[in-house]
Amino acid sequence: MNFLEERIRKDGLVKPGNVLKVDSFLNHQMDINLLDEIGREFKRRFGDKHVTKVMTIEASGIGIACFVAKEFGVPMLFAKKSKSINIAGEMYVAEVESFTHQNKNQVIVSKKFLSPDDHLLIIDDFLANGCALQGMISLAESAGATVEGLGIVIEKGFQIGGRVIRNLGYDLESLAIIDAMDAETGTITFREQ
Amino acid sequence: MNFLEERIRKDGLVKPGNVLKVDSFLNHQMDINLLDEIGREFKRRFGDKHVTKVMTIEASGIGIACFVAKEFGVPMLFAKKSKSINIAGEMYVAEVESFTHQNKNQVIVSKKFLSPDDHLLIIDDFLANGCALQGMISLAESAGATVEGLGIVIEKGFQIGGRVIRNLGYDLESLAIIDAMDAETGTITFREQ
Repeated sequence: MNFLEERIRKDGLVKPGNVLKVDSFLNHQMDINLLDEIGREFKRRFGDKHVTKVMTIEASGIGIACFVAKEFGVPMLFAKKSKSINIAGEMYVAEVESFTHQNKNQVIVSKKFLSPDDHLLIIDDFLANGCALQGMISLAESAGATVEGLGIVIEKGFQIGGRVIRNLGYDLESLAIIDAMDAETGTITFREQ
Repeated sequence: MNFLEERIRKDGLVKPGNVLKVDSFLNHQMDINLLDEIGREFKRRFGDKHVTKVMTIEASGIGIACFVAKEFGVPMLFAKKSKSINIAGEMYVAEVESFTHQNKNQVIVSKKFLSPDDHLLIIDDFLANGCALQGMISLAESAGATVEGLGIVIEKGFQIGGRVIRNLGYDLESLAIIDAMDAETGTITFREQ
């Protein structure tokens, strides 16, 4: 078990409906030492890549992405979720359909900050169906930027997102992959990596 | 001029309607070295306070608050903006009326992470009319937590928020206070501190 799996075992709460609550240390209250360690681990895993920028999406990815960007010594850019259709021509827009909520959301980023010269490491806290990652990949494509890799803190391995992204040929690294959860017993089964 | 005022002069863009764009380094693309320096500066200014937790609000405050929390060696907690009325009893809720948009928004935080034992340093990127800060102060009050201080990166000194918070007796520190902006000339007048 790595440091993150240990922490999930210790402080994560399994709720009915395959919900994992990690809000005491990752996505509401944040343990800064853990974020720092996550940043170093992604540097270890993607250190051989040419990364010019770290990209994430608001809100809970921001803290993690900051510490990854610190390790790489590059800026961090976060995409915004937008409900409005009236976006001026100065933004790249990706329309993302949510599997879960069966609605469409827009993900936007300013054209000023993504270019064909950019080599991106895309970071997020959770990967389930992969809508957020697909939106960020689409934004990168629109700008002609290169996606060097994608780093996820917790992947729900029993949902489709990770398989889709890996099938597309992307270098996706998840620090913890959960293959099964049981709300009654509180058991979490991690995938051997 | 301090490091932040210098950076605003260099990379900030003044737009009509008293809008200051700092999206190249602070609230869309983020300069991590600057955030780190901001964290150290708030530690210098609030270092004599007993701080157990740093609190901010999503989304653009999160990165800054992470680096402040790192300096103090405490967790960071971010309040969420919520549009839904159906919040279970497990959240503190503050209803905040926006001066600008003339609508009401809910700001929420889990009761698990705020208690009378908490001494909070509240952090945000911008202060204009102060709605976000008022919401966070209200959340702290609901929990019986102590607000040790409030740290703002950029205060629009010509709007009412800063005066209100200081009149209420809070220790509010803004790294840069803008007294006037001129979109035609691009001039920014900082308040002497």
